[in-house]
Amino acid sequence: MELMDKVGRYGFLVEPFHCDFSQRVFIGHLGNNLLNAADFHSAERGYGMDHLNSMHRTWVLSRLVMEMDDLPEAYDRIEVETWVEASDEVFHQSRLCRDRAARACLRIRTEHLGHDRHGHTPAGGHNGGAGRAYIAICGDGEGMPDSPTVARQDGRRARLARTVDTRYSDVDVNGHVNSVKYIEHILDLWDMEWHAAHAVQRFDIAYVAESHCGDKLGFRVEPVGDAEFCVRVTKCSGESGDGVEVCRCKIKFAKK
Amino acid sequence: MELMDKVGRYGFLVEPFHCDFSQRVFIGHLGNNLLNAADFHSAERGYGMDHLNSMHRTWVLSRLVMEMDDLPEAYDRIEVETWVEASDEVFHQSRLCRDRAARACLRIRTEHLGHDRHGHTPAGGHNGGAGRAYIAICGDGEGMPDSPTVARQDGRRARLARTVDTRYSDVDVNGHVNSVKYIEHILDLWDMEWHAAHAVQRFDIAYVAESHCGDKLGFRVEPVGDAEFCVRVTKCSGESGDGVEVCRCKIKFAKK
Repeated sequence: MELMDKVGRYGFLVEPFHCDFSQRVFIGHLGNNLLNAADFHSAERGYGMDHLNSMHRTWVLSRLVMEMDDLPEAYDRIEVETWVEASDEVFHQSRLCRDRAARACLRIRTEHLGHDRHGHTPAGGHNGGAGRAYIAICGDGEGMPDSPTVARQDGRRARLARTVDTRYSDVDVNGHVNSVKYIEHILDLWDMEWHAAHAVQRFDIAYVAESHCGDKLGFRVEPVGDAEFCVRVTKCSGESGDGVEVCRCKIKFAKK
Repeated sequence: MELMDKVGRYGFLVEPFHCDFSQRVFIGHLGNNLLNAADFHSAERGYGMDHLNSMHRTWVLSRLVMEMDDLPEAYDRIEVETWVEASDEVFHQSRLCRDRAARACLRIRTEHLGHDRHGHTPAGGHNGGAGRAYIAICGDGEGMPDSPTVARQDGRRARLARTVDTRYSDVDVNGHVNSVKYIEHILDLWDMEWHAAHAVQRFDIAYVAESHCGDKLGFRVEPVGDAEFCVRVTKCSGESGDGVEVCRCKIKFAKK
């Protein structure tokens, strides 16, 4: 399968109502823009979500890592760069990078997984051109983060920080809880005082299973270092009951 | 004060990750885009939020009404039109309209209120050019909705449908809960089955007081007609306690 190594560039303006109290763009909003950029990138190359949907297939985000030096502010004009580094029959690589003032201030690496509309991963590798879905992983590149790695929680110091009843606005075009909504719910585990004093430096997340509207999500937080935490998200049946793991993340903050 | 009656036009693409399970754009996402369009419109005319912020002032949405025939779908290219119909020293009129395929399918009327950074409305009228904030109301126009009107709830049939602990992602650049976030929380009061069978036809909302991160919001729903509801939002101190009214809305659904 031919490599598709051309860089796609998608400029956008950081609009003030997509920014948090510190005038910096919400990571969740940026995340959805980056997913959209990845969609445009793949659509322009013939294997976008729109095309896959016509085959009753879709792609979902499997893993993601973000490293950031400085989030853009309201009214900044930024550019998302997205490119593919390697692919084979099963995996298709995709990677996103965003520049402001010729400086890469946010670096993202994603892995996507091809699903049919019932949420099942096809047994074989599939590309869009031959009635197949695709799977994406990421490769290496200068200055880019290493692969997303989210170890399982040790669990001994994990505490159930919050439960969330998922609702209409949590669900995206794919019919399940939006990948970025988990990130929003995870960032909401820290209060304003914490966010005023800390910025996210690195965020790794692995998506394990889908959840759907009406599922109750449990968020278990475990400190693993200085301003570093693991968060395990489960679909749980009660306030404190264990359940199916949906995703797990590791988040590293830096003091502002 | 001179009328500023030029129409501002802001095109954008409806991106798939800003759409709900039915492939239609989230009203909340569209709402923030419309607020951004109003900000660009005012900024281009010298009294935008960026300028007001430099004077330690800002503007907040006071009232809003949306009427919609058909929400745009993923990958639609749409155009937001925004214009001002009348203004005086105290009030500045702003109105938004969005067209797809030369058809106005969403019509919005807004009223904005000038605030200082402490949330206080200046005693006199103020425009941006003279170190003053501004207030916006809306006028009449062909095919545009009448003024936002949100009567107080009768209350006898109102039930507390949900409480929401506000968090980091609820708060916008103004430092208080984002106007559109209330709309998202209100639409989340209905489940997926309801949203699959009904579309919002008209949505009136009046913002009465600000709320801040950490406030617990109570949402009281009262049926007032066929698929028509009033929702009263309060900052409440407990699960069922009354509190200060934050906003109230009236929402009319149509069967799909």
